[in-house]
Amino acid sequence: VCLGPRAAMQGRTWTLQRHFDGFPKISDFELKLELLPEPQNGEVLLEALFLSVDPYMRPYSRVRMKEGDVMIGGQVARVIQSQNPSFPVGSLVVANCGWRTHTVSDGRTLTPLVAGWPEDVPVSFALGAIGMPGLTALYGLEEVCQLKAGETLLVNAAAGAVGSVVGQIAKIKGSRVVGCAGSNHKVAYLRELGFDEAFNYKTVASLEEALKKASPEGYDCYFENVGGQFSSAVMPLMKPFGRIAVCGSISLYNDTIPQTGPFIHTHMIFKQLRMEGFLCNRWAHKDKESLQRLLAWVKEGKLKCSEHVTEGFENMPMAFMGMLRGENTGKAIVKV
Amino acid sequence: VCLGPRAAMQGRTWTLQRHFDGFPKISDFELKLELLPEPQNGEVLLEALFLSVDPYMRPYSRVRMKEGDVMIGGQVARVIQSQNPSFPVGSLVVANCGWRTHTVSDGRTLTPLVAGWPEDVPVSFALGAIGMPGLTALYGLEEVCQLKAGETLLVNAAAGAVGSVVGQIAKIKGSRVVGCAGSNHKVAYLRELGFDEAFNYKTVASLEEALKKASPEGYDCYFENVGGQFSSAVMPLMKPFGRIAVCGSISLYNDTIPQTGPFIHTHMIFKQLRMEGFLCNRWAHKDKESLQRLLAWVKEGKLKCSEHVTEGFENMPMAFMGMLRGENTGKAIVKV
Ligand SMILES: NC(=O)c1ccc[n+]([C@@H]2O[C@H](COP(=O)([O-])OP(=O)(O)OC[C@H]3O[C@@H](n4cnc5c(N)ncnc54)[C@H](OP(=O)(O)O)[C@@H]3O)[C@@H](O)[C@H]2O)c1
Ligand SMILES: NC(=O)c1ccc[n+]([C@@H]2O[C@H](COP(=O)([O-])OP(=O)(O)OC[C@H]3O[C@@H](n4cnc5c(N)ncnc54)[C@H](OP(=O)(O)O)[C@@H]3O)[C@@H](O)[C@H]2O)c1
Repeated sequence: VCLGPRAAMQGRTWTLQRHFDGFPKISDFELKLELLPEPQNGEVLLEALFLSVDPYMRPYSRVRMKEGDVMIGGQVARVIQSQNPSFPVGSLVVANCGWRTHTVSDGRTLTPLVAGWPEDVPVSFALGAIGMPGLTALYGLEEVCQLKAGETLLVNAAAGAVGSVVGQIAKIKGSRVVGCAGSNHKVAYLRELGFDEAFNYKTVASLEEALKKASPEGYDCYFENVGGQFSSAVMPLMKPFGRIAVCGSISLYNDTIPQTGPFIHTHMIFKQLRMEGFLCNRWAHKDKESLQRLLAWVKEGKLKCSEHVTEGFENMPMAFMGMLRGENTGKAIVKV
Repeated sequence: VCLGPRAAMQGRTWTLQRHFDGFPKISDFELKLELLPEPQNGEVLLEALFLSVDPYMRPYSRVRMKEGDVMIGGQVARVIQSQNPSFPVGSLVVANCGWRTHTVSDGRTLTPLVAGWPEDVPVSFALGAIGMPGLTALYGLEEVCQLKAGETLLVNAAAGAVGSVVGQIAKIKGSRVVGCAGSNHKVAYLRELGFDEAFNYKTVASLEEALKKASPEGYDCYFENVGGQFSSAVMPLMKPFGRIAVCGSISLYNDTIPQTGPFIHTHMIFKQLRMEGFLCNRWAHKDKESLQRLLAWVKEGKLKCSEHVTEGFENMPMAFMGMLRGENTGKAIVKV
C-alpha cells in the first residue's frame, strides 16, 4: 500500500499536567492537540474507537510517567492509513497508545483483534472480558489461586472489569463464589451473573460478620482487588492452605499517607497461607490461547460482559475518576 | 521384655498455671509432681535427658492448651523401662511429651534417633539442627523459598536455632546470605558460620539503611522469623519475583494489642512477590531422608551447631523466657 501526500493531521491527547496527589482532580489533566507525522514505511495511522480507563493508571502514573507525558492506556483502534501490509486500512487492533485519538505506530506493539471475532460481539470487549482484565482474571485464578472445583472463592470489586470475570470463571470451574461490591445495583448484577453470595460492603453493619455469614466455613481462595482494611477482615477467615491472588489494591492507590493494619504473619503461618502478587503480563506467552478461551465462553453465553460507557474523548478524566469512585458496573470505557 | 512390679514412680512437670498475657511471667508456670503408672503391654517409661524450649510454645499455648495443662514441647529421652520391643531399655528417642522429666508412652509418637547417629555428635542436636528446627530451615528454603545458587537471602533471628541453619544451608546452596541478630556476640557468630553480611538490628541507626547497605541490589528471598516492623523494612527491598517464607513472627507473639504496619499489597503486586506461611510438619513424609541430609552436613563440618544450655529441669521457665528475650546463641535447650 502506498499513500500519496496528505494534509498534516491533528490528534487530541490527555496529558498528566501534574502528578496526582491523593484522589485525581480534573486540573491534574490537560487536553492537548498533537500534530501527527505521516506514516512511513512499516507504519500505520490509528484512530481510537474505544479507550480504556483502568485503576493501574493511578499508581503507574507515579512510577512510569513524568509531568507533561500523555496518560498511559490501551485502546481499540482502526487503521486509517497503512504502510504496513500486516495491518491494512480498516483492520482493528488493540494498542497501548495512551490517551490519544490518533497515533502513528510502527506496528510492533499492535495486537490484532482475536482471530474469528464474531460480528455480534462488541469490539470494545477487547478492552474488558476478552482483553487485559479478562486475562488478569483467568491467570489470577488458574496460575496464582489454582482454584479447584468445590472450593469457595471470595472476590472484591466484584462487579468491575476484572472481578465480574473472576466470579464467572470460578463458576465455570465449579467453585462457590462470594462477591462484594459497592452498591445495591452492583449486588443485583452479581446475582444475575450467578454469584452464590453477594453483598454491598458499604452498607453491611460489619464486614467481618457479612463475610462470615456468606461462607461460615471460610475461604479457600481470595482474589484481592481492593487491599487495605478489606484484606484485614478476610485474613482471619481464610481456610488452612488458602491462596490469595493479590491482583490490585485500589483502596490504597490514592493514599497520601500509607494506611496501616494488623500484621498478617500469624495467620499466614498457622494456616499456611500462600499470597502472591502478580501482573497479567507475566503469562503473555499464553495470551493468544487464553483470549480464544475467553471469547469461546462469551460466545457460549457462559461469560457475560457489562460495560460502563462514557461518550466523548473530552470526558476521559471524568470517566477515569468515576471508575476510581466506583461508578462503573462492568468495564469502564470511553467511546471517542 | 517383662518387668516385675516396681515402686510407683514420680515425675516432675511444668504446667501452664495461667494463660500468658503479654510476656510470660514465672508465676504463669507451676512445677508439679506426677505419679506415673507402670508401663503396660507396648508401653515404655521415658526419662528426659534434654528438653527443648521453642518460640511456638508461646502462641500455641493459647490455642492448644488450657490452664493446668502440662506445657507442650519436645525432648530427647532414654527408655528406662520397656514393654515394647521396638524401644528396648537404653534406646534414645525424640518425643513430644511436654515439659516432663518422666513419661509413660505407648510408643506410637516416639521417633528413634536418626539411624547411624555418630558417637561424637551430641544427642541434643536432635532438638536443633538435626531435628525440628533444622527441618524447618531446610523446608523453608527448599520447598517455600526455592532458593537458587547466586541469589541473595535475608534471614532474621539469624543466630537462633532455625536461623543459623537457614544461613548455613543457603551457603551450601551457593547463595549470598545476610543475617540479622540482636547482639554483637551473635553477629560475630554469624560471621564465623560464613554469613556474607551480618549486623545487629538493635544497634543500627536505621534498619532500612542497614538492610540496603548489606545488599544494595535487594533480596531474592526472605526467611521470616520475626515479622512485624522488621518485615515492613524488608518489603521495599525485595527484588521482583522475590519469595518470602513466613516461618515465624516472634516479635508479635507477646502482643496484647495487635501491632500494625503499612499494608504490603502494592509491593506484592508490582514486584510480583510470593509470600507463604508454613509449618514444618507439612513435609513430615520427607523427615527421615531430610534428617539424614542434615546429619551428613554436620558430619562433613558444613553445618555447625551451637547450643545455649540451661541446667536443671527446675529452670525450664527461665530458659523459655530467656530464649524469648534473645539470650540464646544457637538452640536453647534444658539439660535435666
Ligand atoms: N495485576 C494485574 O495485572 C491487574 C490487571 C488489571 C487490574 N488489576 C487490578 O484489579 C482491580 C480491579 O481493576 P478493574 O480494572 O477491574 O477495575 P474495576 O473493578 O472495573 O473498577 C474499580 C472498582 O474498584 C472499586 N473501588 C474503588 N475504590 C475502592 C475502595 N476504596 N475500596 C473498595 N473498592 C473500591 C469500585 O467498585 P465498588 O463499587 O465495588 O467499590 C470500582 O468500580 C484493581 O485493583 C486493579 O488495579 C490488576
Ligand atoms: N513454621 C514452623 O514450622 C516453625 C518451626 C520452628 C520455629 N519457627 C519459628 O522460627 C522462629 C525462630 O525459632 P527458633 O526456634 O529458631 O528460635 P531462636 O531463633 O533460637 O530464638 C528466638 C530468637 O528470636 C529473637 N527475637 C526474640 N524476640 C524478638 C523480637 N521482638 N524481634 C526480633 N527478634 C526477636 C531472639 O534473637 P535476637 O537476639 O536476634 O533478637 C531470640 O534469640 C520463631 O519465630 C519460631 O516461631 C517456626
